[in-house]
Amino acid sequence: MLHPEREQIILEDVLAALGQPVRLGVVRRLSSGEEKFCGEVVQDVPKSTMTHHWRILREAGVIHQRPEGRKLFVSLRREDLDARFPGLLDLVLRAR
Amino acid sequence: MLHPEREQIILEDVLAALGQPVRLGVVRRLSSGEEKFCGEVVQDVPKSTMTHHWRILREAGVIHQRPEGRKLFVSLRREDLDARFPGLLDLVLRAR
Repeated sequence: MLHPEREQIILEDVLAALGQPVRLGVVRRLSSGEEKFCGEVVQDVPKSTMTHHWRILREAGVIHQRPEGRKLFVSLRREDLDARFPGLLDLVLRAR
Repeated sequence: MLHPEREQIILEDVLAALGQPVRLGVVRRLSSGEEKFCGEVVQDVPKSTMTHHWRILREAGVIHQRPEGRKLFVSLRREDLDARFPGLLDLVLRAR
């Protein structure tokens, strides 16, 4: 399960990851910072579609995924994103 | 040639349009605000590929294209983007 290091996070990848309604919705639902069970973040999207979206978000450095038993937990990499691109996440979360 | 109205510009579309190296490069080269001839903004990308990238940028509301004779001119929709998503463009142009 690939997670780029903070220094490897690339602006284009983050923008592309955020630039899709389901993925932006996920990021909004994770914005409290709390780790959540993947199945509780999204309920109405087919599992195979979500596997794709989780991968895009994870490989861009936007989220962190952690397996525990049979479950997969997910959290927003807010500290890393704020360090790499100060203000970006806040701006995107605020915008409508 | 579709140009969305300011109010129709959608965050996800703008992020997706900016989230690609060639397109982000174009936006950086247009950041002075000056209108430029399309062929002068990008030289090393195949024309059919650029037609695709121009369309993505234009339909997202990031650029404005204007035909004049056989030439196509392009400019950044900075005022519209700043009005819709204050700070986003500056932040993206500043980030490395």
